[in-house]
Amino acid sequence: MSTTLGELGDRFDCVVEGDPDTRISAVGTLDGAGPEAIAFLANPHYRPLLSATQAAAVILAPGDAANCPVPALVHTNPYYVYAQIAGFLFPLLRQSPGVSEHAVVDENAKLGENVTVGAFSVVEEDVHIGPRSFVGPGCTIGAGSIIGADCRLVSRVTICQRAKIGDRAILQPGVVIGSDGFGIAKGESGWIKVPQLGAVVLGDDVEVGANTTIDRGSIKDTVIGNGVKLDNQIQVGHNVIIGEHTVIAGCVGISGSSVIGRRCMIAGQVGIAGHLEIADDVVVTGQTVVGRSIKQAGVYSGALAMEETGLWRRNAARFRKLDKMARRLARLELDLKQKTANEGEADD
Amino acid sequence: MSTTLGELGDRFDCVVEGDPDTRISAVGTLDGAGPEAIAFLANPHYRPLLSATQAAAVILAPGDAANCPVPALVHTNPYYVYAQIAGFLFPLLRQSPGVSEHAVVDENAKLGENVTVGAFSVVEEDVHIGPRSFVGPGCTIGAGSIIGADCRLVSRVTICQRAKIGDRAILQPGVVIGSDGFGIAKGESGWIKVPQLGAVVLGDDVEVGANTTIDRGSIKDTVIGNGVKLDNQIQVGHNVIIGEHTVIAGCVGISGSSVIGRRCMIAGQVGIAGHLEIADDVVVTGQTVVGRSIKQAGVYSGALAMEETGLWRRNAARFRKLDKMARRLARLELDLKQKTANEGEADD
Amino acid sequence: MSTTLGELGDRFDCVVEGDPDTRISAVGTLDGAGPEAIAFLANPHYRPLLSATQAAAVILAPGDAANCPVPALVHTNPYYVYAQIAGFLFPLLRQSPGVSEHAVVDENAKLGENVTVGAFSVVEEDVHIGPRSFVGPGCTIGAGSIIGADCRLVSRVTICQRAKIGDRAILQPGVVIGSDGFGIAKGESGWIKVPQLGAVVLGDDVEVGANTTIDRGSIKDTVIGNGVKLDNQIQVGHNVIIGEHTVIAGCVGISGSSVIGRRCMIAGQVGIAGHLEIADDVVVTGQTVVGRSIKQAGVYSGALAMEETGLWRRNAARFRKLDKMARRLARLELDLKQKTANEGEADD
Repeated sequence: MSTTLGELGDRFDCVVEGDPDTRISAVGTLDGAGPEAIAFLANPHYRPLLSATQAAAVILAPGDAANCPVPALVHTNPYYVYAQIAGFLFPLLRQSPGVSEHAVVDENAKLGENVTVGAFSVVEEDVHIGPRSFVGPGCTIGAGSIIGADCRLVSRVTICQRAKIGDRAILQPGVVIGSDGFGIAKGESGWIKVPQLGAVVLGDDVEVGANTTIDRGSIKDTVIGNGVKLDNQIQVGHNVIIGEHTVIAGCVGISGSSVIGRRCMIAGQVGIAGHLEIADDVVVTGQTVVGRSIKQAGVYSGALAMEETGLWRRNAARFRKLDKMARRLARLELDLKQKTANEGEADD
Repeated sequence: MSTTLGELGDRFDCVVEGDPDTRISAVGTLDGAGPEAIAFLANPHYRPLLSATQAAAVILAPGDAANCPVPALVHTNPYYVYAQIAGFLFPLLRQSPGVSEHAVVDENAKLGENVTVGAFSVVEEDVHIGPRSFVGPGCTIGAGSIIGADCRLVSRVTICQRAKIGDRAILQPGVVIGSDGFGIAKGESGWIKVPQLGAVVLGDDVEVGANTTIDRGSIKDTVIGNGVKLDNQIQVGHNVIIGEHTVIAGCVGISGSSVIGRRCMIAGQVGIAGHLEIADDVVVTGQTVVGRSIKQAGVYSGALAMEETGLWRRNAARFRKLDKMARRLARLELDLKQKTANEGEADD
Repeated sequence: MSTTLGELGDRFDCVVEGDPDTRISAVGTLDGAGPEAIAFLANPHYRPLLSATQAAAVILAPGDAANCPVPALVHTNPYYVYAQIAGFLFPLLRQSPGVSEHAVVDENAKLGENVTVGAFSVVEEDVHIGPRSFVGPGCTIGAGSIIGADCRLVSRVTICQRAKIGDRAILQPGVVIGSDGFGIAKGESGWIKVPQLGAVVLGDDVEVGANTTIDRGSIKDTVIGNGVKLDNQIQVGHNVIIGEHTVIAGCVGISGSSVIGRRCMIAGQVGIAGHLEIADDVVVTGQTVVGRSIKQAGVYSGALAMEETGLWRRNAARFRKLDKMARRLARLELDLKQKTANEGEADD
């Protein structure tokens, strides 16, 4: 698609700086964009690249407009505007819908209009798939599951039985929804399996990244709220509840029965223990272990900064004796106090 | 299935408190169970919910019986009893067995009686599958593999060649068994692959969670003992040996050639380095790095507690100078000692 | 295949100690090898096993030759020689090539000579696959992708559209290449998806482990250099660039837009934050958080050593007050200095 800067400005509520007839047909990075490509400046890390950009135009915040050598779209939220413009210029190409002759769709499954089911996908009995939803190749949708409208199961997505997926879900390759949770009970002769009887419920506008797994509930359901975005390789344990519009980065592990609030931001490799609660609007930085409930909105951390290994080891060796060090410090304080007191007495 | 509290008590060796004719046809949580549903109290975290429960009955320990407002099954191990009752009330529905017309089964594969092979599954040459085992849709079982009786490969499970799986294994979607281990050797012009020639051997009663990967051995086999339970997204490196009845939570990484004892409990996101040994009955808490062998049963930890980020950063900044701090402390001790000694001399 | 020690020595440039006619037809470990099996000693951890080995011969370094009780191949890099010998003795058995009748290959896809496409694999339009490449069962290769020569997609590999894979790639089961990156932009009513428009480019001789995911670039491409080896369950974010011959162990997470140098070695469970740069020849030890750029070659660490939990907790509790402890130490230093100064004055 080809358009002009002026039309983009109108459509996405931006102030246009420079020639509104500038042609735009592509997107690019500040240092990679060529003719007809629009770039954006949102992360201050890349601000030094602005002055030399060869982009046809740049989407940027008001404070950067003066330093832009090319035409610009000015908006307080340039990344959000970029996302919209990129989607406008490059709409998802829809294949013509229909059920592949190489798919197996149960006769009791109900498919809405313009649904696609790709080759080697299995749609089991009593599944409902909403209109215009796309099920790519190699997917399995278990019996009794309900998929909303306009969903996109990219490929090789596994949905176990009785899951409920809202509208506009995007499920990347390798996603597993509704695997059994890790429910085991210890008896005298070892561990036995605790039947996992709940389901998984995803709200609307949820995206789930590649190879992320979401276990079904053990008794109640595992529930992912509207607008939640999960990155790749996340593990969501059984009975977990994730509040609306929370976003979680890659490789996070969430143990069973924990409840995460709304609008939280959880960074990569964070580990969340089981049976705890995290308030709304909590931010957790990378690789933190959340070992207790978080009652208040705020930012929480738990990972140490990397060092050159020699220095790291010296510090880490001291950490192993930190309790002793604290005792030595306390004794020293006491000794000095005592000494001062004694001298005070001596002075008398 | 519908039964009575009395029958459950008899069957699972519990003391029945209250009306043994109480009808039970469902399970529920303490705060969610309705009529005819039995709940359980095992985790003390949920004890406050007991007094208001609407469950038809509760499975609980002797110490909680007096506070239960409804009929109860009393047993010293309520969670274990719950697991059995849930399995009794909700037995796995078996589809009628048989090989899907959409599966590819090699003519030299041997399938026991009442085996199921789902659509789009591939069973290669010389595979043996034991009686009543269920191979769901989209699975691949590599040449020469042996699968025991009563196994359940839920769907989209990949088993590479010559694996040996015991009886009653449960393999969740996305599991990979027998991928090549990370064997590389450095030469002058870069890394070359070390052929991975071993296999994977799973004992009986093993469960493997969604998207967990177990690499084949490089020369000998990778061995998972009887009764081992692995959660989702675990990585088991080549040549690893895991002892019987050990349980491992999600996102754990186990490097090659390590040997883990029996009845261990490894919590989520733990990392285990290569070529080490962990004794029987070891517990490792979440996100610990096991960087050396553990010779004795016990509990081991290595992750710091999360803090509000402001406080965290102040402490973490001090950590970066911990070695210096220790030296300053030692000097201070020396100075004070010296001073005291000098004063002693001065006093003389 | 069966050969002699002498022939192996000639072929792989080793000094032969002992009878060059020793027959070799297998490989084994130092403590497991039987007749006709050659073992190796590379990791000093296993040196104590040398004296009792029953192997037919051992590949080892010059310094170990004197202590070897059996014939030997002596070379400065025994593991590298072992890798070559194992590959020589056990070449990958190639199935007869050809496209399975159960595969779906688009009429506009181009397959080189002797390509294999397994059952239930999908090759979409405009895909090119180079000669002798093996695509196992259950793979999906997205439209416009280019696969080089002599590649091996073991099974159930997903390649999204327009990926470019070099020659001799090995992709283990469950690999996802080209999933959408985690691009989301925050607006007033929640997060919206940022279209992911780039691709993934893999160089030659790349191996990718089971269930590893590599996201497509958001605008530019995600690029994996020649000779890079990735272990299992790694997450590579969008726009990441990994330099040639870098090796990365399991469960590592690499956030978007970071650039990793050449010949780096990244250990398991390391987390690399986004938008940073790592120099060539950097080594990062296990579970380190790389939260800032690394400008210089060297070794970097960030994980504390595990302890028995009682001791760990005592130290960790002190860590929570480390900043206060540092202030107390500083005050003590000051107090003592002051005191000494005062006494000095008093002495005057």
